This record gives sequence, C-alpha cells and structure tokens, in this order.
Amino acid sequence: MFKKYHNAHLFVGSSSSGKESLRIFPLGGIGNVTKNMYVYEYRYDGKLKDILLVDCGIGFPDPEMYGVDLVIPDVRYLQNKKEMIRGLVFTHGHDDHIGGIPYLYPKLRPLRMWGTKLTAAFANLKLKEARISEKVTSVEFDKVLHIGPFAVSFVRVTHSVPDAANFIIETPVGRIYHGSDFKFDFSPLDGKLSELEKITVVGKKGVLCLLTDSLGSERRGFTPSEQVIGETLEKELSLSNGRMIFTTQSSNISRIQLAIEKALKYGRQIAFFGRSIDQNTEEAVKLGYMRFPREAIIRDRDVRRLAPSKQFLIVAGSQGQPESALSRMANDDHKFIHIEDGDTVVFSADPIPGNEHNVNSLIEQLYRKGARVSYSDIMEDLHVSGHGSQGDMMLMLSALGPKYVLPIGGTYRHMMQYKRLAMELGYDKKDVLIPEEGEILEFKKGVAPQIVDKIELENVMIDGLGIGDVGNVVLRDRQTIATEGIVVIVVPMDQSSGRVTAEPDIITRGFVYMKESGNLIGRTKQIVNQSLKLKKGKIVDWQFIRKHMADTVGQFLQKETGRQPLIVPVIIEV
Amino acid sequence: MFKKYHNAHLFVGSSSSGKESLRIFPLGGIGNVTKNMYVYEYRYDGKLKDILLVDCGIGFPDPEMYGVDLVIPDVRYLQNKKEMIRGLVFTHGHDDHIGGIPYLYPKLRPLRMWGTKLTAAFANLKLKEARISEKVTSVEFDKVLHIGPFAVSFVRVTHSVPDAANFIIETPVGRIYHGSDFKFDFSPLDGKLSELEKITVVGKKGVLCLLTDSLGSERRGFTPSEQVIGETLEKELSLSNGRMIFTTQSSNISRIQLAIEKALKYGRQIAFFGRSIDQNTEEAVKLGYMRFPREAIIRDRDVRRLAPSKQFLIVAGSQGQPESALSRMANDDHKFIHIEDGDTVVFSADPIPGNEHNVNSLIEQLYRKGARVSYSDIMEDLHVSGHGSQGDMMLMLSALGPKYVLPIGGTYRHMMQYKRLAMELGYDKKDVLIPEEGEILEFKKGVAPQIVDKIELENVMIDGLGIGDVGNVVLRDRQTIATEGIVVIVVPMDQSSGRVTAEPDIITRGFVYMKESGNLIGRTKQIVNQSLKLKKGKIVDWQFIRKHMADTVGQFLQKETGRQPLIVPVIIEV
Repeated sequence: MFKKYHNAHLFVGSSSSGKESLRIFPLGGIGNVTKNMYVYEYRYDGKLKDILLVDCGIGFPDPEMYGVDLVIPDVRYLQNKKEMIRGLVFTHGHDDHIGGIPYLYPKLRPLRMWGTKLTAAFANLKLKEARISEKVTSVEFDKVLHIGPFAVSFVRVTHSVPDAANFIIETPVGRIYHGSDFKFDFSPLDGKLSELEKITVVGKKGVLCLLTDSLGSERRGFTPSEQVIGETLEKELSLSNGRMIFTTQSSNISRIQLAIEKALKYGRQIAFFGRSIDQNTEEAVKLGYMRFPREAIIRDRDVRRLAPSKQFLIVAGSQGQPESALSRMANDDHKFIHIEDGDTVVFSADPIPGNEHNVNSLIEQLYRKGARVSYSDIMEDLHVSGHGSQGDMMLMLSALGPKYVLPIGGTYRHMMQYKRLAMELGYDKKDVLIPEEGEILEFKKGVAPQIVDKIELENVMIDGLGIGDVGNVVLRDRQTIATEGIVVIVVPMDQSSGRVTAEPDIITRGFVYMKESGNLIGRTKQIVNQSLKLKKGKIVDWQFIRKHMADTVGQFLQKETGRQPLIVPVIIEV
Repeated sequence: MFKKYHNAHLFVGSSSSGKESLRIFPLGGIGNVTKNMYVYEYRYDGKLKDILLVDCGIGFPDPEMYGVDLVIPDVRYLQNKKEMIRGLVFTHGHDDHIGGIPYLYPKLRPLRMWGTKLTAAFANLKLKEARISEKVTSVEFDKVLHIGPFAVSFVRVTHSVPDAANFIIETPVGRIYHGSDFKFDFSPLDGKLSELEKITVVGKKGVLCLLTDSLGSERRGFTPSEQVIGETLEKELSLSNGRMIFTTQSSNISRIQLAIEKALKYGRQIAFFGRSIDQNTEEAVKLGYMRFPREAIIRDRDVRRLAPSKQFLIVAGSQGQPESALSRMANDDHKFIHIEDGDTVVFSADPIPGNEHNVNSLIEQLYRKGARVSYSDIMEDLHVSGHGSQGDMMLMLSALGPKYVLPIGGTYRHMMQYKRLAMELGYDKKDVLIPEEGEILEFKKGVAPQIVDKIELENVMIDGLGIGDVGNVVLRDRQTIATEGIVVIVVPMDQSSGRVTAEPDIITRGFVYMKESGNLIGRTKQIVNQSLKLKKGKIVDWQFIRKHMADTVGQFLQKETGRQPLIVPVIIEV
C-alpha cells in the first residue's frame, strides 16, 4: 500500500482571513465526460468578487436526445455576473474543452481568453469560423497569468493532443491543481514529457485540492505510450499491398505525424480527407507541430493517379459520423474515393461511449465493400487512450499529496472508482469530494469544504441553427412520437355558431400504416364523434372537449394497439 | 499451420442423381447475430419437395428502429409452401433461437417441432404464454429424427445454457453440420462436455458443409470455462458484508445454479426477482437441471426481514432493460427492494451490441444510489462468453474437415474474420461461403455450391401488440419526426365551392417551442397563403397545392432553422 503524502500543515495559501472563500463547480454538469467548463469563484464576506473560468467544451447528446447535434454548458448562472468574470483559460485543444466557445462567447463577451500555443490556435480556428473576431491569447508554459486574484501557472502534461496543460491555480484561499485530461507518457511522440518535477515541487509546497481526470480509473496499470502505435502501423503497412486508409481523431496531430512518417518509410504518398483534418494539419504545420516534405502530400483529386500500393489516405470519421469523409467513401458517396477490394482501413481510435453503433455499422459497411479493416478488437495497440490509467492517477495523487481530491472528467462510475483508488492510497473517504449535479463546493481556510448552494443545470441543446431552442417540451414530444407515433384529430368548427360543421379528420404519422388501418381509424372517428356529442348543440367548453377527446382516443388506441401515440386535437375555426 | 482435413472423395450422401438439390438460407438475414431461422430445402428436378426449419428466434431492433420492441424473421417466403414444411428443430433455449415461435407459429401451423429437454421446456413456456396449445417435442441427444428426407442427429455442445445442440443433418445431397452457438468448455458447470468424439467421427465420414457460429472470431485463443466465474464470485462474496445482488441472462441456468451454491457457502439466503428468472428456474428445477435446498430460497416480500449480509438476490435485467427488476430497484420503483448504500451489484453478463448505453446508464444509477458495482471492465472473469473464440472455431473446423464452410451467427465483420481463420487452416477462399442478404445457396452432387436465387427479406417489427404493422413508411416517419419534428398545415375548404373558407392553421410538435416561435409560425402561414393563392378562386388541383405547400414551407423552415421537419398538409372539407 502507498503512503499518504499529503500533510495538512504543509498547505500554504496567501494570507487570508476567515472571511475569504473559494467556490468551485462545473457548468457542464457532474458525471459528464465532455462539456467541460469550470467556475472558480472568489468571495469576500460572502460577496462574489471574481470569477475565473476554465475550459468551454461541447458534449455529445444522449441517444434519447433525438435530433440534437450537440450539447453545451449551461451558462445561465453567469448571466448577471459578467462584470465579475476575469477571464477564461483553456487546458487543451480538444472539442470537449474548446468547442463550446463559438456558441457561448456571444453570451459572455467581453471575455479575455488564454491557452498554450496549439490550444489557442485550435480555439481561434473555431472562433474565426463563427465570424467572431476576438482571439485566444497564446501563452508559453513558463508564464504565470495573473487573472484577478488568481495566479495561473501552466504544467505541461502528455495527452492525445500536443501542448496539453494542467493548471496550478493560486487563490487567496489556497492552491488548487486543475488536473484535467492527462497521462504520463514517458516517450511521447513530440518528445515533450509531462512536467513531473513541477508537479512534485508544487506538491511539496502544499495543495489544497486536486481536481483530476478520472476517466481511466477502471483500467489497471499505466496507459501505454503513443509509440506503440508506430510499431503496429508498420506491421499493417508491411502486410498491405493495396491502398491504405488511416483514420483517427483530427486533433491528434502527433499521431497523424507518426502515420505520415511510417507511410513515407513504406514509399507511399499521403492525402488528407475531411475538413477538420485539413484545418488542423495546416495550422499545426504553420506552427511547427508537424513536419513533412511538401511533395509527400498529394491533392485529394489526384490520388487515383497513384497505384493503390502507393496511396496512404488520412481520413476523418473515426467515430462513424454519418457525414464524415470515411462514411461517404464507404457508401459510394464521396467525390474522389470509393472503398474497393484490396483496401485496408485502419481505425486508430476507439468509439467514444454512445458511438459504438455508428462505428460498428461503418466497419460492417467497409467489409461489405471488400476492405480489410483493422481495429482494436482484432489488432492490439492500434489505439491508446490519451487518459491515464490507475497507475498514472496514483502517480499524480502521490506526487501532489493534496488535502482534498475531486475527481472530474468521468461519469459517476469513474469518479467512484477513483475514490476507491484514493482510499487505497490512504485517503479518508470524506476527503474525496463527489458532489451531486449542480452542487457548489466552498473552501474556506481551516474548515472542511462544504456544499453551500445548488444550482439547476440544463442540457443546452444545439439542433441545426438553433441554440437552446429545443427544450424539454420539444424533446419529450420527439421521444413520444419517435417510439409511439402521433395522431392529429382535426375538428372543424363554425366560428359564429360554435358548432361542429363537418366530420372530424384523423391524421397519423409514425403510428400504424394508415392505408391498412382504415378500420382502426374509422372506429377512432366514432370515439371522437361521441366526445363531440357530449355537450349537445353549441360547444362552449372546448378545453374540456379537447382533453376528453385526447383521453378517450388515447385509451382506445392503447387498448387496440398497445401503443400510446402523442394525441393532438386541433379545433379549426371556419 | 494446421493441415486441411477435408477431402472431397470422403464425402458421403445417400445415393443421388444429379437432379437432386439442397438449398440453405436464413430467413433472419445474413450478418445477423440474432433472429436465427434457417431453411433447408430438398428439391428434385428443380421442384420443391420438402422443407426443414432450424430455429425461430427474435432479434433486437437497431437503434434507428424507434419504438420497435422486437424484430422477428420474415417468413413470407414460406407462406405458400406450408404443406412442404416437414418440421422445425430448435438448437437451444435462447430467445434469439426460440423467441420468435409464439409470433410465427400461427403463420406456420400445423407445424411439428422438436428440441432437447430444456430447449423444449423453454420454448413451451413461450407457447403457453401466447395461449398456443401446440408443444415442442422433447428429444434425447442419442435419438435420430427422420423429418421428411432429412435425418437429424443431435450433438451436445457447451454454451451458456444447458442442453444446447448442434445438428448433423443427413440429406439426399450430402451431410450438413449445423453448428450454431457453441464453445468447447472442458469443465462445464453441469459436467456435460461437448461431444467432440461424435464430431470427429462424423468428420471422418465426410461433411459437405459446416454452418458455424462465427461471433467470437475476433477473439484469440479459447473462450474460458464457466468455472472461472465461481472463483470471481467467491472473491466478491468474501469482500462484501452488505446485500449482494447478482444479475445475468435468465436462461443461463447453470450460472444461476453456480451463484446459488456460492451464496449458500457464504451463509446467505436467495431470492429471485424477475418473471423470466422465476419461470426458467422453476422449469429447470422441475426437470432436474437445478438443485438446491428449498429452504435456501426466500420469497421476494420476505427479503427485508433478513440482515443485508444474509441476502443474495438474483435479479433479471443484466442488459439494462428499462422495465426489468434491476432497473426498477435502481430507480426506487420496485415494490420490495430499493438499492441502498452498502449493496454490491454483480453484473455477470456483458452488454449485447446495441445495449451499451442502457447498461452504462443503469450502472451509473446504481452507483448514485450508493451501490458498489462489479462488471467486466473492472473485475475480470465476471462473465465469459457462451461463444467460442478462434481456438474453439479452429478445433471444430479441423475435427469436421468439411468441404465447404458457411459462417453464421455473426455480423459481416465476424464472418470475414472467420474466413481469414479458415484460410489460415488451408481453406481456399472460394470454399468459405459468404452469401449476401437474401441469397439462396444451392448444393448439388459433384458441383460447387451456387447462388441460385435471391429473395427479399424485411425486418418484421413488433411494437406493442402489432406484429409487422410498423413498416418502413411508419418507421421513416418516426425517424424524421424524432430528429426534426413535425409540422401539420390544416387548410379548411368548402366542399361545394372548393374555396378556402378560413385562415390555415399550423400545428408543430417536436420542432421548436411554439409559444416562443410566434413569429416563425406567422411567417409560415404567409407562405401557405401564397401557395393557396397560386390558383385563383376555386381550387381544383389540390394535389398540386399540397405538394407546393409542403415544398415551399419545407424550404422556408430549413433556411430559418436548419431543420427538415416532416410536413403534413391536411385539407379538411367543411
């Protein structure tokens, strides 16, 4: 068993009275892997003084959120506190940490923003695309940012995108370590190691609370180095004498660089497919994060001039996204490339939870088109996680020895597994903080952290061009219709007399096939007519009649079909 | 490398002219893991003489089949051939092999049916529940069934339900080995090994074609024995001093028996929760497949009288089914049991592909309620597959040495992986048969098998009480509405004059929140009015107007919202 390193009297904040407090809570919700956005609040005498924001990411919708493209953090809490926001720092350039900014910047402006070089560049691509002129300021790793009463230092960590950072956040109440996504890769592709020494030094000075990535807390040992992927890829290249197609996350610049090097070694030329891969590689080359001879690259339209054994395509769509380049190639829907017999497709990414079905369908389709497909299930070490495993987490926790620890970046089960780990390292149950959704944690000097407030957090859904205009009512209707169908009852009423002027009409969609259900529809009409006759002559109480129609028709259809469609009575005045 | 055992001249059928043929094809589709149903057809001079059916299972709907509860095989092909059907044999008692019979028996009756003892018992439970009086005949493993020109012998195989069988089917054209779900478990819980000797002997006699389980073809080595679960379970029991809840497939009688034995060893009493577990265990006890002292069992309502450390609950719902006992316990919706702090929940089952989201949500909820949850990701050997891995498959293929091999019971990727395996064992590419969906494979003496016909297979969907009444039209509407919403345009028209009598009305559901979209709806009405004015005065061509309304409103809404709702114009005559 490991020894507990942390030691309360080592803890050092700046001088502070008992009136100062620090609140920490996520706006993307607890138990969310994505949609990262954290609020750090400094208060004096209970009064809010300053806010520091960390990250602003997008999330993926649950399968029940029919038709929703994305979800973003709920910033309603910040709306009347804008003048207290001192700025926002981004940890790294993944969409679940930067992707929300084009949607939320308009609600938070003016807003100063910082990130390391590649992080800032990727975030700025998104802002530019949304025609927002404001820019994220690029910061070197050795710089300390003074943002209101917060002093933020950057700690380089290895992850699946270069320039990823953790933060040491000095606050008047104590020192916080914001340890979002990290692993300890001791042979990273870009040669830049996690700054373990910086971590150890700050641990010796004393850390009040560690917020830590917990996503890999179910995996034993250490997460392997990205290097292993190179060996696997060489194996694939030596086996294949047809076209090779490589797909991974488009932000994983180092892995794309690795793939290019291996492809060149095996005498192939490279083409990129997919807007995000184009943009990211262009930006990365410009900033010096990727390096390859220009003549290694061939334009997408020119690929077909090469022999298949000379082609190496780097293609977006590793999560099976229906509109991605890879999906279109698999479905003969791509302008230049169709999957053919003899192609090899290498998935260097695992499905994000929730995407399993899309990825599996894509793999099926690739096989049907004659491709050989390599993916983690049959070929080990084609993907390694960017998140640490139990070993990485124990190393971080031991090196920092914080007084309290707050697992983040995982679902509830990952947080609970992390808690077990911390307890194995000697932590007391009560010092591993696992708040509920919306709960606000407050730290004060000399006092155990407490939940002091609870805010309501909603899923802000993005569907098409609308931000947040698909609310719970619309979603509930979609869910009902999606599983049970809709029945619209149209009753024409004479405006002046208040009388029903003709036969009611029944329209159904997604319920039963109407052409073959004449009888069912006919009997439904009878039930509607009975409802309408309840009040003889002129009908005044239309509210009552509508409800009565909906109830009786609903009961009838449930009995006949076992389904409970959404029933919409419409009275139309003629 | 293994040597290829099969040898064409060894092949022995009964005497047969070149006029005889055997056709084999699935009605549940190719590339389907579930919905198993196979047709064996004997023809003479091209004329259909006799049909043998193997299995009749249910399948799980794809996530895009909104609201669909189940899918079943499409038996339209059999409809005008009923008098040729000589009978149906079931391989084993899993729902994806027997579950379709209550739905399809009424379409196929009269129909003789056979299965081994437990298989017949489980199928009969389903028939009884559907108030069908016909019974599946129970057959001993050493019996040979003569069904028309087919002689069917049973081969015991190990799987995740007792009494699972493969079939040796002697036909006038040649000997087929129907190798549905199997693994080689050399220490099965019930002590009954796969009959490898029988397999070897029939291999020596010569096998024309092996139909073989391919689901585990991505996994290296051999699938572990069920025994390992006992050890894992003891570890869990020794760790826990609270209530223990165990969940697995309700048909996995042997594993439930194992769990009971271990629970008793640790001084606990057992209660069952879930209708399927109740029914299956009762049946299994009656038939002697399970054995435990009666006093070990306590009624569900009496559980709370026991100390938590004395409770061992066996609960249905390992796939996260929302209506299952386990889901209800996790959501405080169960009559007798609520999940509490200190409970341990053991998942001894892995999610079936497509169910990942439901299972993950359930695990989250259990953690939130304070339970400790054990599942494969964190605790190895809590579940072992009932399907063989590459080693098991190679053993079967080597022992039988068939002339041809047809992988079944997997998706396309599993079949293609199996093909690679067979080729490693020396099989020629063209002797591994992978037909397309609906293709009918024909065997004739002395000729290579050929695709001779193609039938159209649909998904027959079960939703509520309806069988097959949710067709593609209904499903497409559900999909559109689920992701984009519905807009109904109601236009009142005077029947006699053919004129529009009042303002059109717009009703939307699942589209945008109407109360906040007055402006959008108002502008939509204007567009409808413009459509209506296209033909001045009396409108005759309502078809044209409807289409025009739908098109223009659709374009307008797409431009304004980025969504493409289902647009339903309704002309109501008043």
